[in-house]
Amino acid sequence: MAEEFDFHPMWESLGMNLADHDMLLGAVGQMYGDMFLTQNNRSKSTSYLDFVATNIHSGRIKEMLDKKEAGEATKIVGSFCVYVPEEIVLACDGIPVGLCSGADWATDKVEEHLPRNTCPLIKSFAGFKLGEVCPYIESSDLVVGENTCDGKKKAYEFFATQKNMYVMDIPNVHDESTLVTWKAEVKKLAAKIEEECGVTITPERLKAAIHAVNEKRRALQRLAATRAADPAPISGLDSLLTVQAAFMDDTPRLTGAINDMAAECEQRVEVGEGVAPKGTKRILYTGTPMAVPNWKLFNFIEKAGGIVVGEESCTGSRYYKDLVDESGETVDEMLDAIAERYFKINCAVFTPNDQRMKDIVQMAKDLHADGIVDVALQFCTLYEMESFAVEKAAEEAGIPFMHITTDYVGEDAGQLQTRIEAFLETI
Amino acid sequence: MAEEFDFHPMWESLGMNLADHDMLLGAVGQMYGDMFLTQNNRSKSTSYLDFVATNIHSGRIKEMLDKKEAGEATKIVGSFCVYVPEEIVLACDGIPVGLCSGADWATDKVEEHLPRNTCPLIKSFAGFKLGEVCPYIESSDLVVGENTCDGKKKAYEFFATQKNMYVMDIPNVHDESTLVTWKAEVKKLAAKIEEECGVTITPERLKAAIHAVNEKRRALQRLAATRAADPAPISGLDSLLTVQAAFMDDTPRLTGAINDMAAECEQRVEVGEGVAPKGTKRILYTGTPMAVPNWKLFNFIEKAGGIVVGEESCTGSRYYKDLVDESGETVDEMLDAIAERYFKINCAVFTPNDQRMKDIVQMAKDLHADGIVDVALQFCTLYEMESFAVEKAAEEAGIPFMHITTDYVGEDAGQLQTRIEAFLETI
Repeated sequence: MAEEFDFHPMWESLGMNLADHDMLLGAVGQMYGDMFLTQNNRSKSTSYLDFVATNIHSGRIKEMLDKKEAGEATKIVGSFCVYVPEEIVLACDGIPVGLCSGADWATDKVEEHLPRNTCPLIKSFAGFKLGEVCPYIESSDLVVGENTCDGKKKAYEFFATQKNMYVMDIPNVHDESTLVTWKAEVKKLAAKIEEECGVTITPERLKAAIHAVNEKRRALQRLAATRAADPAPISGLDSLLTVQAAFMDDTPRLTGAINDMAAECEQRVEVGEGVAPKGTKRILYTGTPMAVPNWKLFNFIEKAGGIVVGEESCTGSRYYKDLVDESGETVDEMLDAIAERYFKINCAVFTPNDQRMKDIVQMAKDLHADGIVDVALQFCTLYEMESFAVEKAAEEAGIPFMHITTDYVGEDAGQLQTRIEAFLETI
Repeated sequence: MAEEFDFHPMWESLGMNLADHDMLLGAVGQMYGDMFLTQNNRSKSTSYLDFVATNIHSGRIKEMLDKKEAGEATKIVGSFCVYVPEEIVLACDGIPVGLCSGADWATDKVEEHLPRNTCPLIKSFAGFKLGEVCPYIESSDLVVGENTCDGKKKAYEFFATQKNMYVMDIPNVHDESTLVTWKAEVKKLAAKIEEECGVTITPERLKAAIHAVNEKRRALQRLAATRAADPAPISGLDSLLTVQAAFMDDTPRLTGAINDMAAECEQRVEVGEGVAPKGTKRILYTGTPMAVPNWKLFNFIEKAGGIVVGEESCTGSRYYKDLVDESGETVDEMLDAIAERYFKINCAVFTPNDQRMKDIVQMAKDLHADGIVDVALQFCTLYEMESFAVEKAAEEAGIPFMHITTDYVGEDAGQLQTRIEAFLETI
């Protein structure tokens, strides 16, 4: 990830550890080259993803800071979860960003504050902070957490000692009364973001923000729909990165780029062109979210001769499948509509979570998946436990199923490759 | 645990696995003998605990079933957590019981439904059910779960396939709005128990139930207070079993027995008599609950020459420290009072949970503890994570601290003994 412009002064001004960060960028750049740039038959429009990857810790950060400097943006608001409504941040001229949590970092320091048996995603964001290597965390004026899993809930108590932090409460069950409390929680967040950004949310601002994010979701839906074709016009790796980018990139620019990718994929489908040959074994991914640069599993599947055609996860369909109703006129109506939309996210934190099982089976059918790969990050209690229900749903639908527990370390690479190859052979 | 009466026909009628259950009783009886009956200078009144232990799976079960048979009790209602208000069950002439979850059982069967990396308490109750060796589970007409930790929340989805199950929702935070939802949740439970038992809760019934349980708590408070003395008049093992019994035994009978124990302990304190010599190193236990027969840690501490003088846990002070306000006159007022009382339980599920840290330090001071032993069951995310805050609180208060992660297996016995002995030597 060579850059012509020298971003080191910017990183230094953010209080980052320059030497360690250079090392991180080098490693991620190498990984990106090995995994993404070695793919065959990528569509031309995926070059935007290379641009995103190249600029992820550099140009994009500069762009955000420049916007703040120029008074075009108020605050940078970081989060870790699709349950935090980005529309509210945008309506306050804030910049919503997903924070780094996809690689192990500063594990020794992390384990002074969190148990060793903590899921890698949580250890990662703590490590990126303690190691001072995430410009998103460092440039965030506010971090919005959410009480989803036990691990994040308690880790935020520690993280709040490191950053200006606000935590949203998320219910355990989906019913009428929890929808009421969730709506109140969304409104509390709106008040907090207004205060933080020094902006009053008007109907015009919120309407525009809702529309902008819906447009991004529509573009992602359009792109995802092309993956039902055989051959698939875009790889799982590139699709995953597209959703990952949606947490970090400028909303309208990315929306345009995704629409370009979707248009090219639609053309490819028409002429039967794909990134992998027709008949390639098709995998539906489901499970824990995958934060940048956690690409290893998709890379294994696709390098082993399979292709991922869909992601039932928070870095997948859950991010874009539901739109916010745009008919609201008052701020209150629109915040309710936002709450209703986010309430549909079938995170494993909910009990029961039957709709997730239905979504998985439906996606597998719609995308003509030959098998389901269900993944839990190690020590992720919720996805580990829910995997039994996913397996049952897959079995009942007659879809081959494999469960994988993994982490960010990579020591299980050989074993994973073998298991994935064996799975692809049997389906 | 020899019994003169043959309880096998009763266990058989409950659908239990007789051979395995005999094996379990034999093992627990042996353990009880080795741990409890080898204690020196036990007060005479602790003989009631031997009675409880002897009858725990036999006489007590028969008593409950006989009461149902005779129309003196409506239903047996099982639960796993101090957040389920026993007053409501008692007000419906039901019998509230804590369910078996303190030993590994049928682990191979459990792991067909739950991940290997699940905390032993959860695996235990699943195993006791799948192995058909818990007469409390088998005789329960209804099991009331609660959404506390991620593990239990999801495990109840499985358990509901095995038993008639109802799950209460527990908030993540303690504030005014969650108190409102919690009060509603308590009232929903009351309606459910009324329906299940076929009883309408009247003010008289509920008032009597509140008073009865408060009396049990007052007796436990009285007993606990005597442990501030040096020498301590009662062991940690016997104190732990007393609270464990409170989840299973007949309320008024146990209350009487605890008051007898408290009276004898008060006399002992007056004359300076103890279960261990004056000057014995005094330990405050804090952490995960300990279900019968999970006594090993207390046994290690006390066999190593220390004494446990208090338990900041759900099988300890959290069970009895708060009373329900008895001034309510209507059912609604009393249910609110119940909700308010239970809302004060400082389970690690809450964020933040600062009051727990204050309670721990206060208890350590009040009970003149020389050190704090903080314990998490393996894979218990909440207590593992909160242990860092407990350590910090202990450090700030200048109280020696040790954290232990353990399970039910006992393979770590040697290591634990060594660590505990070393800790006792340093404090």
